[in-house]
Amino acid sequence: MKLPLGFRYASSYAGIRKVQKDDLALIVSDTPASAAGVFTQNRVAAAPVRLCQAHLKESSGVARAILINAGNANCATRTGAKVALASAKTAAKLQKLPVSQVLVASTGVIGVELDPKLITAALPAVIAGLSPDNFETVSRAIMTTDTRPKTATAELSASGGVIRIAGMTKGAGMIMPMMATTLGFVMTDAAIAPNRLRAMLREANEESFSRLSVDGDTSTNDTLLLLANGASGIKLASRDTEVFLGMLTKLLQDLAQQIARDGEGATKLITISVEGAKNRDDAARLARAIANSPLVKTAIAGSDPNWGRIICAAGNSGIAFDPAQVDIFLQGVRVCRNGLAAPFSEPDLKAKLDEKDVSIEFHIRNGGPGQTRFWTCDFTEDYIKINASYRT
Amino acid sequence: MKLPLGFRYASSYAGIRKVQKDDLALIVSDTPASAAGVFTQNRVAAAPVRLCQAHLKESSGVARAILINAGNANCATRTGAKVALASAKTAAKLQKLPVSQVLVASTGVIGVELDPKLITAALPAVIAGLSPDNFETVSRAIMTTDTRPKTATAELSASGGVIRIAGMTKGAGMIMPMMATTLGFVMTDAAIAPNRLRAMLREANEESFSRLSVDGDTSTNDTLLLLANGASGIKLASRDTEVFLGMLTKLLQDLAQQIARDGEGATKLITISVEGAKNRDDAARLARAIANSPLVKTAIAGSDPNWGRIICAAGNSGIAFDPAQVDIFLQGVRVCRNGLAAPFSEPDLKAKLDEKDVSIEFHIRNGGPGQTRFWTCDFTEDYIKINASYRT
Repeated sequence: MKLPLGFRYASSYAGIRKVQKDDLALIVSDTPASAAGVFTQNRVAAAPVRLCQAHLKESSGVARAILINAGNANCATRTGAKVALASAKTAAKLQKLPVSQVLVASTGVIGVELDPKLITAALPAVIAGLSPDNFETVSRAIMTTDTRPKTATAELSASGGVIRIAGMTKGAGMIMPMMATTLGFVMTDAAIAPNRLRAMLREANEESFSRLSVDGDTSTNDTLLLLANGASGIKLASRDTEVFLGMLTKLLQDLAQQIARDGEGATKLITISVEGAKNRDDAARLARAIANSPLVKTAIAGSDPNWGRIICAAGNSGIAFDPAQVDIFLQGVRVCRNGLAAPFSEPDLKAKLDEKDVSIEFHIRNGGPGQTRFWTCDFTEDYIKINASYRT
Repeated sequence: MKLPLGFRYASSYAGIRKVQKDDLALIVSDTPASAAGVFTQNRVAAAPVRLCQAHLKESSGVARAILINAGNANCATRTGAKVALASAKTAAKLQKLPVSQVLVASTGVIGVELDPKLITAALPAVIAGLSPDNFETVSRAIMTTDTRPKTATAELSASGGVIRIAGMTKGAGMIMPMMATTLGFVMTDAAIAPNRLRAMLREANEESFSRLSVDGDTSTNDTLLLLANGASGIKLASRDTEVFLGMLTKLLQDLAQQIARDGEGATKLITISVEGAKNRDDAARLARAIANSPLVKTAIAGSDPNWGRIICAAGNSGIAFDPAQVDIFLQGVRVCRNGLAAPFSEPDLKAKLDEKDVSIEFHIRNGGPGQTRFWTCDFTEDYIKINASYRT
């Protein structure tokens, strides 16, 4: 699988995080790319999020570069806006780009001043290191409590030839993206106009990053960016739009699942499927309530088929449903039928729940057409260990 | 401190829970008492909750007895409604009471059939054991994962003489009462008409049990009942209403705090104060968002003054506020001023955060008159241990 044409990547250690591990990364498109983004809905949005939004507006959805740092969220600080702008300006100047075509993203601790000199001083070396081969390196540089990098690629035989998509993401905690997740960057070499690109990103995001929660805490820095630079020489035809959107959605779902699987302390990826809700939004709210219940997540950690907690969590979603119409399946085994206990072999199901992939299906009989899938992880003692002293 | 006059209490082991520990309890008023209740808003309400609501309606707010079992929630079972009614009927028959004056409450596992014979067989012995002295014993019989009983009493020198209130509650997990908590029973010997009693319970609950969360999971069985039997011979005068309401609110807050302090795995009681919101409801939503953030709760467990997580959680509440107007105090120490880091001594504050009582103050400057307090607990590895295998 080849990466999209016309993109280069680089990273280096700028001294932002304590551990000596690359913490500054750059993604550059050789030519101006159509760009679209979705961002956190947290009322306390970080400075880089606000600058990204301003730049996308100013440039009418065109970008050349994404500058990313890990180790500091550049959020709730006195100098946040200045630091974000100074970083973007230096990156633009060194590469002779319009500053509005440089997007920025940050992840790390909140409320600690970020020294812009660390970034501006490290930038020349980062730029010198830009190469089409550093995709994987950059996916590591943006990690915080992640235990592994998260990437996905796809290829489409479109009218006129092959176009490619490659995406990377990071995040393990403070994850319940309302629009996007902590950080996600997706590149394609198809030529797609900014307006179309934006519409496709919104739709694909709705069924992927917006269906993800590790701990129910929406971050201040959520940023998902999609760049389309046309380097393949292929303009996405109308008849290929649906296939491309499907491929993009699948790629984003793949990345979202990787985040859930690598959730802080997680041992299991949980896929929650809801069927029979009034509409997609109701299905998502039901799924989210189940995904965010600490009692459901700890039961799965203990391989305990405690479906009572699942129906209880759904009952708290604010969505109306008749419990007597509910069937619940764990690992494909019906544990609840018409809202009541269904017979199943406890030891068999416990063994199945020991697997690394757990499915919860919540079906409302005689309900509406609303359905969705949602991804989360189990909740273990390690989540507590990781988070009881992250800052200090 | 004496208990309210005219109430008797009893409990015994009926074999509902595996461990041989009293699991069936009865509270009886010697004369018909005014009765009011608030209940779970979970869409999956347990059978005893529904029967309680029906009986309060049928009796126009009069009750003689509350029958409580622990070890089985009598929720999401085929026979739930029948079991609840059969239990109430037997208790009524044995004591020659109208069945609508018997209220019922259950707590324990969800989705497991409850054998009504266990209850009806044990009832004669329970009734034989009724005594004004068994208040404490009953407060132990209703416990599930609680590590200690939770009671509170108060006394008021009202016009005409002394009236008393005594309350008990239980709960350690699946706690975010939207109207009440898992179980709470409050008795007073004042004479108060059902309508007034209902209004007072609603108002007092709003500032106590509705401001409590252990894990954000609203139970299917939440029930808070208040009985006023008039055995003191004193009818609550209009001019004493406000004082009585204040006393009732304080008593319920005391019980709610006891639940938070005994939250599953908890080592610390966290009191969250919000000031400067538009109104009380907005203040409560901000406080609830902070209280339910696993990242805030784990930071407090680790004595980590990570205020960035607090402002991030508030930003997710859905309530509009200007981050630049926010001050945050931990243990009375300002850690955030105008949305930015305030200077403080890290080792001093860490030492203060090691205490068993932790306060978080979230103040919006130049804001509205909305304020409230909210109680929760820290989130430790023991919460996970307790919940990974509660059912099995």
